[in-house]
Amino acid sequence: MTQAPRISADELQRFGKDAFLSGGLPASDAATIAADLVKANLRGLDSHGVSRIPMYLERIERGVVNPRPNMQLTKVAGAVAHLDGDDGMGFLASHKAMDAAMDLAAEAGIGMVGVHRSTHFGMGALYALQALERGFVSMIFTNSSPAISMWGGRTAFLGASPIAAGIPAGKAAPFVMDMSMTVIARGKIRLAAKRGEPIAPGLALDVEGNPTTDASKAFEGVCLPFGGIKGSVLATMMDLMAGALTGANYGGDVKSLYFDHSEPQNVGHLFFAIRPDLFMSMTDFEARMEEFNRRIKALPRAAGCDEVLMPGEPEARAEVQRLAEGIPVTDNVLADLAAVAAARKLTPIATQDQGRIA
Amino acid sequence: MTQAPRISADELQRFGKDAFLSGGLPASDAATIAADLVKANLRGLDSHGVSRIPMYLERIERGVVNPRPNMQLTKVAGAVAHLDGDDGMGFLASHKAMDAAMDLAAEAGIGMVGVHRSTHFGMGALYALQALERGFVSMIFTNSSPAISMWGGRTAFLGASPIAAGIPAGKAAPFVMDMSMTVIARGKIRLAAKRGEPIAPGLALDVEGNPTTDASKAFEGVCLPFGGIKGSVLATMMDLMAGALTGANYGGDVKSLYFDHSEPQNVGHLFFAIRPDLFMSMTDFEARMEEFNRRIKALPRAAGCDEVLMPGEPEARAEVQRLAEGIPVTDNVLADLAAVAAARKLTPIATQDQGRIA
Repeated sequence: MTQAPRISADELQRFGKDAFLSGGLPASDAATIAADLVKANLRGLDSHGVSRIPMYLERIERGVVNPRPNMQLTKVAGAVAHLDGDDGMGFLASHKAMDAAMDLAAEAGIGMVGVHRSTHFGMGALYALQALERGFVSMIFTNSSPAISMWGGRTAFLGASPIAAGIPAGKAAPFVMDMSMTVIARGKIRLAAKRGEPIAPGLALDVEGNPTTDASKAFEGVCLPFGGIKGSVLATMMDLMAGALTGANYGGDVKSLYFDHSEPQNVGHLFFAIRPDLFMSMTDFEARMEEFNRRIKALPRAAGCDEVLMPGEPEARAEVQRLAEGIPVTDNVLADLAAVAAARKLTPIATQDQGRIA
Repeated sequence: MTQAPRISADELQRFGKDAFLSGGLPASDAATIAADLVKANLRGLDSHGVSRIPMYLERIERGVVNPRPNMQLTKVAGAVAHLDGDDGMGFLASHKAMDAAMDLAAEAGIGMVGVHRSTHFGMGALYALQALERGFVSMIFTNSSPAISMWGGRTAFLGASPIAAGIPAGKAAPFVMDMSMTVIARGKIRLAAKRGEPIAPGLALDVEGNPTTDASKAFEGVCLPFGGIKGSVLATMMDLMAGALTGANYGGDVKSLYFDHSEPQNVGHLFFAIRPDLFMSMTDFEARMEEFNRRIKALPRAAGCDEVLMPGEPEARAEVQRLAEGIPVTDNVLADLAAVAAARKLTPIATQDQGRIA
């Protein structure tokens, strides 16, 4: 493991915004996407953070991502709207869709927004956190480019297609879930490949269908679904609900983020927002969530576990720490970003401010 | 493995209805529940079929299930209703709630119904199949009595809490999902215990927290979640969305179906219905689902796989076969049902009509 310099969130935000500005995005959109990527880094999900900037810029440059989308939101029923993402950055379509779902839910109790002609939307938890800010329960479905097989198949067909969700909890830790349908996130395999590190056995097969611990071969091959057939079935649901239902690409047609620049991805998403005070007062609901938090802290713990945590609590703690201490960014990611800075004449990332850590 | 006599679905239906009539249920409710249990047997999910009749009758007899509930359905927002199950059989509350969710979705595009004061609702796929009959997409969440631990805990706290879903597919096989959050359904461990058969390693811990292959010890202990932390997090979501949100018991408070007759279970469920023609015509949507079915049949197959199947397709095929050939019912389940017949003076199940199979 090489030493990783720690960079402040502010400096990464500054650089990310500059980078997307150089890609032709409006200032507010560039700032939004930079903040989303830095948020992933802050929460410890470095696979979905600033390391992806060069890839996103390349896709814009090659014309498969529209830097200035004209997104169309259409209400199609009392509690449902549809968003055409116009091939823009998936982050922008997704924030707009999540907001629209909450507006619908404010009226109807639940709101759902289907998105098509979107692209990779980054860390799914972003939209659960967005909903939590307005006090809504949320669920976020997406499909993605082929990474795992149908159960019984041996080639990549379904996406890693994460599912995310959030539930507010008053003064206690909210529930925040974000999980891909693979044993580990495909982005983590990509990052290991980038770092030249091997991956654990049992995560992936190479293009020939053989088990591999070579991260590069795994990234080109097929990921194994978590929980065997159950993860595969959930991935099938993601492709059908987020893809087939919304009018997006599906059934193996979502284009690869890294390997295909032939045309826009046409990723599909499905956003649900639910008012938490439908069946009781908000006060009573929050009290129930706080009670849940109290109970899990008092549970008998497994060997090696110091504290039982709410899903999302480890990431929230990482955010506090990384805001204070800076975000560790590996040298090869920094080199990629330095190359972006040089090619686009951007102020490079200042790496001296917070020292180096192991 | 003992030989299992095959009984016709009609004869099991006849007996099931008689049994629930003897428990004091109205005729139409008794018929509905009998049909639901036989449906589970037909689909090959014997753990959720007629073997449960003695348990359900005992719960009615002990006063923790109300044989004649006065269920209250209340619309609480444009697309949301709440159902008080009045401690009746969960099947009845669930059918009523799924229907109400579809009525709401017909108007608002999506409909959601939260249920509290319900009890065990049987096979989750029942309600996905119900929604498919009216042409709706569905999702079904429930919580259940403690069976698995929070991630980091070592005692049973979360339910096995299945999630189910359905997506219509025109002339092709619909998507039907029904999975518990355990590696295998707790009902299957119970059935193995009943049969005196061991279970595979890696499925459960005994009450002391030690791995066990003794089905009885496993049933009293804690089940392991599927996919490790991911299954545990999904089970947490089920408890919070189906339990905390709806006003049902949650956080370890749902009473055991088998071991606790102190008070009603107060299980919670959450039913979602979605119109499939929100973002395109029904014809276009069905064509997309049919195309998905065609594509999966053409996928390169893994070794040992003869055909890639849509989730739910194996169960649909089992139903065709068991309708024609009868349902295999093991001798110890038949003995339990014979005891019920004797105690309640019911016509016992005729076992001679369809012979015995291995």
